[in-house]
Amino acid sequence: MRALLFFLLLVIPANAEPRARCRELGIAPGDYPPGRHNAITDVAGVTVGHSTLIEGDSIRTGATAIVPHQGDVFRRKPPAAIAVGNGFGKLVGSTQVDELGQLETPILLTNTLNVWEAAATLVDRTLAAPGNESVRSVNPVVGETNDGWLNDIRTRPLTQKHFRAALDDAYGGPVEEGAVGAGVGTTTMGFKGGVGTSSRVLPNEAGGFTLGVLVQTNYGGRLTIGGAVIDPPRTQANTGGPPVEYGSCMIVVATDAPLSARQLKRVARRALVGMARTGANFSHGSGDYVIAFSTAETNRIPYEGDAVTRAVVVIDEARLTPLFEAAADATQEAIYNALLQAKTVRGVNGHTAEALTPDAVRRAISPPPNG
Amino acid sequence: MRALLFFLLLVIPANAEPRARCRELGIAPGDYPPGRHNAITDVAGVTVGHSTLIEGDSIRTGATAIVPHQGDVFRRKPPAAIAVGNGFGKLVGSTQVDELGQLETPILLTNTLNVWEAAATLVDRTLAAPGNESVRSVNPVVGETNDGWLNDIRTRPLTQKHFRAALDDAYGGPVEEGAVGAGVGTTTMGFKGGVGTSSRVLPNEAGGFTLGVLVQTNYGGRLTIGGAVIDPPRTQANTGGPPVEYGSCMIVVATDAPLSARQLKRVARRALVGMARTGANFSHGSGDYVIAFSTAETNRIPYEGDAVTRAVVVIDEARLTPLFEAAADATQEAIYNALLQAKTVRGVNGHTAEALTPDAVRRAISPPPNG
Amino acid sequence: MRALLFFLLLVIPANAEPRARCRELGIAPGDYPPGRHNAITDVAGVTVGHSTLIEGDSIRTGATAIVPHQGDVFRRKPPAAIAVGNGFGKLVGSTQVDELGQLETPILLTNTLNVWEAAATLVDRTLAAPGNESVRSVNPVVGETNDGWLNDIRTRPLTQKHFRAALDDAYGGPVEEGAVGAGVGTTTMGFKGGVGTSSRVLPNEAGGFTLGVLVQTNYGGRLTIGGAVIDPPRTQANTGGPPVEYGSCMIVVATDAPLSARQLKRVARRALVGMARTGANFSHGSGDYVIAFSTAETNRIPYEGDAVTRAVVVIDEARLTPLFEAAADATQEAIYNALLQAKTVRGVNGHTAEALTPDAVRRAISPPPNG
Amino acid sequence: MRALLFFLLLVIPANAEPRARCRELGIAPGDYPPGRHNAITDVAGVTVGHSTLIEGDSIRTGATAIVPHQGDVFRRKPPAAIAVGNGFGKLVGSTQVDELGQLETPILLTNTLNVWEAAATLVDRTLAAPGNESVRSVNPVVGETNDGWLNDIRTRPLTQKHFRAALDDAYGGPVEEGAVGAGVGTTTMGFKGGVGTSSRVLPNEAGGFTLGVLVQTNYGGRLTIGGAVIDPPRTQANTGGPPVEYGSCMIVVATDAPLSARQLKRVARRALVGMARTGANFSHGSGDYVIAFSTAETNRIPYEGDAVTRAVVVIDEARLTPLFEAAADATQEAIYNALLQAKTVRGVNGHTAEALTPDAVRRAISPPPNG
Repeated sequence: MRALLFFLLLVIPANAEPRARCRELGIAPGDYPPGRHNAITDVAGVTVGHSTLIEGDSIRTGATAIVPHQGDVFRRKPPAAIAVGNGFGKLVGSTQVDELGQLETPILLTNTLNVWEAAATLVDRTLAAPGNESVRSVNPVVGETNDGWLNDIRTRPLTQKHFRAALDDAYGGPVEEGAVGAGVGTTTMGFKGGVGTSSRVLPNEAGGFTLGVLVQTNYGGRLTIGGAVIDPPRTQANTGGPPVEYGSCMIVVATDAPLSARQLKRVARRALVGMARTGANFSHGSGDYVIAFSTAETNRIPYEGDAVTRAVVVIDEARLTPLFEAAADATQEAIYNALLQAKTVRGVNGHTAEALTPDAVRRAISPPPNG
Repeated sequence: MRALLFFLLLVIPANAEPRARCRELGIAPGDYPPGRHNAITDVAGVTVGHSTLIEGDSIRTGATAIVPHQGDVFRRKPPAAIAVGNGFGKLVGSTQVDELGQLETPILLTNTLNVWEAAATLVDRTLAAPGNESVRSVNPVVGETNDGWLNDIRTRPLTQKHFRAALDDAYGGPVEEGAVGAGVGTTTMGFKGGVGTSSRVLPNEAGGFTLGVLVQTNYGGRLTIGGAVIDPPRTQANTGGPPVEYGSCMIVVATDAPLSARQLKRVARRALVGMARTGANFSHGSGDYVIAFSTAETNRIPYEGDAVTRAVVVIDEARLTPLFEAAADATQEAIYNALLQAKTVRGVNGHTAEALTPDAVRRAISPPPNG
Repeated sequence: MRALLFFLLLVIPANAEPRARCRELGIAPGDYPPGRHNAITDVAGVTVGHSTLIEGDSIRTGATAIVPHQGDVFRRKPPAAIAVGNGFGKLVGSTQVDELGQLETPILLTNTLNVWEAAATLVDRTLAAPGNESVRSVNPVVGETNDGWLNDIRTRPLTQKHFRAALDDAYGGPVEEGAVGAGVGTTTMGFKGGVGTSSRVLPNEAGGFTLGVLVQTNYGGRLTIGGAVIDPPRTQANTGGPPVEYGSCMIVVATDAPLSARQLKRVARRALVGMARTGANFSHGSGDYVIAFSTAETNRIPYEGDAVTRAVVVIDEARLTPLFEAAADATQEAIYNALLQAKTVRGVNGHTAEALTPDAVRRAISPPPNG
Repeated sequence: MRALLFFLLLVIPANAEPRARCRELGIAPGDYPPGRHNAITDVAGVTVGHSTLIEGDSIRTGATAIVPHQGDVFRRKPPAAIAVGNGFGKLVGSTQVDELGQLETPILLTNTLNVWEAAATLVDRTLAAPGNESVRSVNPVVGETNDGWLNDIRTRPLTQKHFRAALDDAYGGPVEEGAVGAGVGTTTMGFKGGVGTSSRVLPNEAGGFTLGVLVQTNYGGRLTIGGAVIDPPRTQANTGGPPVEYGSCMIVVATDAPLSARQLKRVARRALVGMARTGANFSHGSGDYVIAFSTAETNRIPYEGDAVTRAVVVIDEARLTPLFEAAADATQEAIYNALLQAKTVRGVNGHTAEALTPDAVRRAISPPPNG
């Protein structure tokens, strides 16, 4: 992955200075503080991996893997739920998650036309895992957005190799953001989009839980930060810049709070609230989905239970509001991070998506010098 | 209530012999045995009450109350879920049950146009209960079917008095079935319908749980018992008999199995399977709903939780199938009981709905004497 | 109703000057212009009525009626759909709207504990209407929020008389906003809430349709206008001001665009986007619902169709985005109008909800004099 | 495909006589007559193709394609809906069908672990079709059941070649049933399962519409025909016969009735009623889905609409009941046909699934000679 990124640096002249995340610009939605890395990986056990494919002047795509815990995900399934903001998308695995309230594979995010190769990768790996010799059913979960404005998506360039690389690359700690993995080719509200992440830690009286979000942003609307609308530069005579009208967003929410699948669905729906605050227009063609899961060990569902019943822990329903707010706030911040960490990318058809610069944000949110 | 029933006996010449329940006719769907009373009240703590209103020659209606446990239902809410077979009905309380997965009042069943008085009764009683002086939100759950073929439903004759009577009448043990309470005025597939109940007890290796069902039958289709279609007598030149084409069914499922709301929804959907087996046509105008709840004390939701989290018990997901089968089987049997226990009722517009007789069933399911 | 309002003016010292609507303060979400009255009544045929009940120092409640068209709503049913933001509410009629995709009564909004009297009013009026002598099933649609912070809601003070008054009061043209009808006793994000409305007119190339929204605001969060957070005055030593943490919102969307019920559901979900932008926190206890209907005559569903099939008109799916944006923008503006048009109200328990003043908004959205 | 079938005939000694379909045994659910072929292809324009893969003693699988009309499905999308009986399955494409109410590819049915290759095939063909040079988003619809009891499913033996063969094989007229295509390796309630089909033609006063069903049966329960339970032969000491407890069912419903997506969803749910009547237990592990579509030309959705609005035709809602009954009846009959047309198949692990014989049915549904 790093080699591929290096290639990216050759293609797109690097913006040498490290780019600020949105919090460094004074944008910090909500009342709760972020976790150590302000990333989904602040939820203990969650890891993230990227695989980036950049070839020639037209292939700009990749995959991002989110691994919900470091045990055997198939044999110790985390409770999970999916919320649909707008269902114009190819989310794989949704009906089984709805029915059973659980994940049984890591989550892969990629481009619209390669979800099948991603799903096959998850299936093949699960079948091949030690102890799974008699497994005959696997429900892979794969989300996507359409990076076809920058990427020659019709070539369907990703193969199992790339998806395995994303899964193998998964690690904890800081998460690479921006034009990486599943975010290489995305655009958002006229800017270069990407992968972003953020987290929140609740106060002890609310349970002290951590909630983290990772997004793949590729949607339409008018970017709104701190109340200011920031319109994209439309300097490209030929192409007019990336679409502002349409697109999709994938959102993954992880938490160590012990939640039932029903409660996770409630949390998942709040991620869409954070997306709405960024100016998203939830257009007709948008595939906007949230996948939420709990890492609480108490609530993992054994592949083969050895007893009729099982004790689990749930949160008191009335105490969910802080988690709702954390989901909205972290989603909003993760989206801003995706844009701010993305670099300008030139891709297929000579299209160029320019990155949102910190300066553009600073200008927008600060009053002009003399009022 | 007994006085009113006595009145019924005056109006409709009594069929003196006790009517057989379907099991006594050799019809016993599924493999699991029923509980002691073959009734929803076999689930410990569940009680049922009826209020019957029969006036003149046109009022034939009533209410049936199902009380999920003998504690304070509002302060110790049972997990619950609703399944919609066909949503042409006025089920009160559904969105909150969906969102929170819980009941907070007993369930009332009645006629289509009196659900509001039923709901108001549940609200008023909850507000008036000791300890609830500061309660400002109550989600009553009321189901209905349309008894307008026998009952002058447009007069909306039921008042809070009648609904209070049903709630006050609730007791355990054997449940009165047939043309009683919410079943007084219903018709089913051309016969007199009514209230019916049945239960199943799972073997110990499946957890030994009890599941009980109570139905209010008022739907269309072709009555099918033991594979035989039993067509209604169409002897009434003037009216042609009760409708065979349309109508609705309310189904209540109780179990002591410790289930989450999501699991209860799965169980609830299986009750519709039992209904399908009886010949139901699930017509356009049908309001077919299942309300399922768990009486497990471990899983009750406190009105005001005193901790952020709470331990609960769930069933191993793969062990749900016996509960699914129990729900389908007990629903099928409860429906047959409703019809077999109903007595012929004459109501508004000179309409008469004739009861299904045990003989008609015996004839249908036995091969003729000489092959 | 006007007499009652007059009474309000006696109780609460009037803010003599006419209050600005949000657009007059320079807040105009989105790109599309409003209709003539910037109200739901800009959708031809839609009328709105209020009934306000203010008694003594503790009753502060009322009802608002939205009549979808001026024909016989029961016999010419408008296509409709419901979106659930958070289902902790007592929305009456939802399953049948979901199943059939239609309204058959006007919509009433009121307080949480009086929905049953509202529903009964709609049923009784429909049964009593000329030509409906044989009608035996009516699906009233009633929404609510909980005005119990200002209103002694437990007394359930509204009766059919009040709901009839709201229905009888319905007229077109400008809509009274603020602390009126169903908005008398509501609070929102720490301020006095109320009823608000707004509309949008699409350009001709998008069909030239009008879409209007009416809201009953009573929810939690942090009021955000033009990117600025406006915190409520917490000057009341005794009570701390209205809740900022919780509450609910009812949203009604009307449009003359010819939409199917499925399309209306898509539009309805976008109203929640506008609500999200105002700072709503969609808390656990919130009952947030959107009811959307189309007034297009071509698509009305006859009570008794005289043919097997029927021609209708639908919008090209890809052209829905402008309607989505209009729904979000008009909802956002309607909510701001509700707050800005509300007057300070003192109610039960000495609680006082202070109105949002235009000056507070002006201060928040303007840069300070010297940068 | 025929060559492969020939291979099957070598492996499994052929039952030389043509097998009776259920109607020839006197089993004819419901009141409406079937169409000419008693097949889904009776709906004009619908075609069906199979691809069968039988290799060695362990590969027993295949694919079945249902093509909804003979035009360009991507550019003239048929209205469609999906109903979920039990969501333990890998149905591809469901959220987009839910959101948009349309199909944009043919439907493929196959085994659980090869759905990704099926989906990729549909995508590649759509991308490659003339006129689709700029298409960048395709929503393939693929259903599955798990044939792993007879088939070495873990090898994931099917490739795009096989799926292309099924699509290329699609034709009208009589449909091959039983152990063919997606039905090669399935088992049902202890018997060999398979693909089956049936249709119904409504009387002119109900619109004269045709509705056809195709099923891939692989589920648990107790086979019930004409009220008689037919238990499978458990003669195999080693293996105990195919599972009776679990499995899945895919159901495809086609009709020329002009329906909206919402109406199609109502129709789809009724197919599950027919399945229930066959003795299905809808077990925990079942993936039971119905995909329904309308072939009415008036209602096809253009890929790129050239106007803001579009006239369509819908059925009068109250006239849907006959279509509901047709869906249930044809599904029931299609399932019986699948079993009756299946031949005994021996597969992986020495497992043998014996076919349901016409004689077994005749014995079950006839009274014994001397009563």
